[in-house]
Amino acid sequence: MTQTRLDKLTASLRTSNLDAVILNPGPTLKYLTGINFHLMERPVVLFVAQGKDPVLVLPELELPKLDLFPYKVQGVAYGENPLEWDEAFRKAAQVLGLDGKRIGVEPRNLRLMEFRHVKAGAPESDYPDATDMFDGLRLRKDKAEVDAMRKAVKIAQDSLEAVIPQMKIGMTERELASELVVQLLKHGSESEIPFAPIVSAGPNSANPHASPTDRKLQAGDLLVVDWGATYDGYISDLTRTFAVGEVDEECRKIHKIVQEANAAGCAAAKPGVPCANVDKAAREVIEKSGYGKYFTHRTGHGIGMEGHEAPYMRGDNMQLLETGMAFTVEPGIYLSNRNGVRIEDNLVITENGVECLSDMPREMRVVG
Amino acid sequence: MTQTRLDKLTASLRTSNLDAVILNPGPTLKYLTGINFHLMERPVVLFVAQGKDPVLVLPELELPKLDLFPYKVQGVAYGENPLEWDEAFRKAAQVLGLDGKRIGVEPRNLRLMEFRHVKAGAPESDYPDATDMFDGLRLRKDKAEVDAMRKAVKIAQDSLEAVIPQMKIGMTERELASELVVQLLKHGSESEIPFAPIVSAGPNSANPHASPTDRKLQAGDLLVVDWGATYDGYISDLTRTFAVGEVDEECRKIHKIVQEANAAGCAAAKPGVPCANVDKAAREVIEKSGYGKYFTHRTGHGIGMEGHEAPYMRGDNMQLLETGMAFTVEPGIYLSNRNGVRIEDNLVITENGVECLSDMPREMRVVG
Repeated sequence: MTQTRLDKLTASLRTSNLDAVILNPGPTLKYLTGINFHLMERPVVLFVAQGKDPVLVLPELELPKLDLFPYKVQGVAYGENPLEWDEAFRKAAQVLGLDGKRIGVEPRNLRLMEFRHVKAGAPESDYPDATDMFDGLRLRKDKAEVDAMRKAVKIAQDSLEAVIPQMKIGMTERELASELVVQLLKHGSESEIPFAPIVSAGPNSANPHASPTDRKLQAGDLLVVDWGATYDGYISDLTRTFAVGEVDEECRKIHKIVQEANAAGCAAAKPGVPCANVDKAAREVIEKSGYGKYFTHRTGHGIGMEGHEAPYMRGDNMQLLETGMAFTVEPGIYLSNRNGVRIEDNLVITENGVECLSDMPREMRVVG
Repeated sequence: MTQTRLDKLTASLRTSNLDAVILNPGPTLKYLTGINFHLMERPVVLFVAQGKDPVLVLPELELPKLDLFPYKVQGVAYGENPLEWDEAFRKAAQVLGLDGKRIGVEPRNLRLMEFRHVKAGAPESDYPDATDMFDGLRLRKDKAEVDAMRKAVKIAQDSLEAVIPQMKIGMTERELASELVVQLLKHGSESEIPFAPIVSAGPNSANPHASPTDRKLQAGDLLVVDWGATYDGYISDLTRTFAVGEVDEECRKIHKIVQEANAAGCAAAKPGVPCANVDKAAREVIEKSGYGKYFTHRTGHGIGMEGHEAPYMRGDNMQLLETGMAFTVEPGIYLSNRNGVRIEDNLVITENGVECLSDMPREMRVVG
């Protein structure tokens, strides 16, 4: 499977007018090799060039990982002294004859550290942004990938269901987040969960990217839980919003609007339709209700090996949805210093329409 | 506290001959602000210049985080369209008058993505590597930091003790790793644990950076567990090696050698001594026993907010140990395709010597 992926990459090099690409530890490297490398202070870089075996620059202590490669790869190892690392990169560039060539990079993942070492090894090269090419490689998920994501969704849903009975007034956001992670692992998530769950209540729920605090759940709070699991390297990313005890009328109202916006966004997704339409469908519901300015982010993002990847559900993104694309639909309304709502599902475009991988109730459930 | 840290940074700018620095989400940004920012596809960058309030470039949906800052900071927010992001960076550079100036960077954390946006905003600037300055800021831990690390060590030790009774022949590395993470969270680790635990047995234990597999524990295996907890943003990073059932004589021998090397490395650490001495003391024990070439990595690395940070215990590192420096001592012997041993403790240099934060038994315990 990874051999096919490598072949697809080298074919893309030609059409993208690139002589090579470089990759550091992250989802694309994992996608192409099936191997877990750590992102650390010692650089690990895979060079993939046209018509030659890939070259991996790595620390000596990682040498055993060369045996895990599913295809032939040449290792260039370096020792513990950082002053000698540039030399390893020079050697790698030399083996592949890359100096002065066009070497594609992935700026969202590549650190300046790896980049500067590569540049020291091939100072005359150009380093164009190859994000679109990399995104294209991983954009359309195959059956095995969708199956893994379906499993990641099921693990996440089962885990939250196990936590709901424990959601009580007086419990802190942090305690709830910790219990949710325990349940994710018990239900079979890999220990590298896709992101630390967001558990935010009351005023904190009005911050879409809140971190759990020691604030205790209070009657009248809306409670946003944004969480996911990892299965076989693929992730899920869901959100549900709960009422803690009795909440006021506006809370009930904005929850209902967001639920309708979520449904409208999901209904707009099918092959051949621009990503923008999904955003517009969800946003229109919220705008018509008068809360448009409180929906401060795009409607969704792609998911797969990463929490955030292409395609992006933005109002200005005319990219067309294609079979196998997987993404979130997650409209929200955030009333500063008061309460927030978000409802997020995971979808995959099928040949004729769309499959919603998540089916946990979206209605406002009361806890506490 | 973060105000003092900011003042320390701006003072360092002067002595480092820098006009400013830029920081993206990561440990140094957390250290200076106390705030959690996500590393994601939307760039977040803090500009700190001499004599002016810091400027933060951030996505609109993160704007609520500006209120969390412990000092005055100017926000420059951008919308969802990536084509407009460069403009926000141009504005930030303009506010601080930075184009053409010397802007220090942290290549180990800064991605090419953020770097290219900043460069688009200040194309005439130099971007020298300010790693040493940043490392210097965080190098000597104060009492509160050491207390947090002591707690992170206790959580880690208590968690592994809870898992030991469950280590049985037939259990997989992955099951063991998952149970260990559950215990870490139950014992009070933050849900962002410092790294996914390494649980590797038999031939896998000979790979210092192995990921847990579905291989089952077998009698005769050495079992390496390398794990840690996070408390209040600070981490622990420990390793112990177990015998699964009865192991052969060489396994017992290499375990004993590594235990002696660990003790020698710890004993060599005190204020005023070069990092190299810690490495040499540990390595000498292993070399004298004839296993020198099987100890393939440095003896240790600094710890604090990160798993791997300065100072590094390498044979060629003449940096002197100072009060407040915290680091690991973790010698190992790795016999390819057979078995491996590593024993790792966490130390802090005190005014007169060294405190070992970890006290879990280092002797080879038999499980299974």
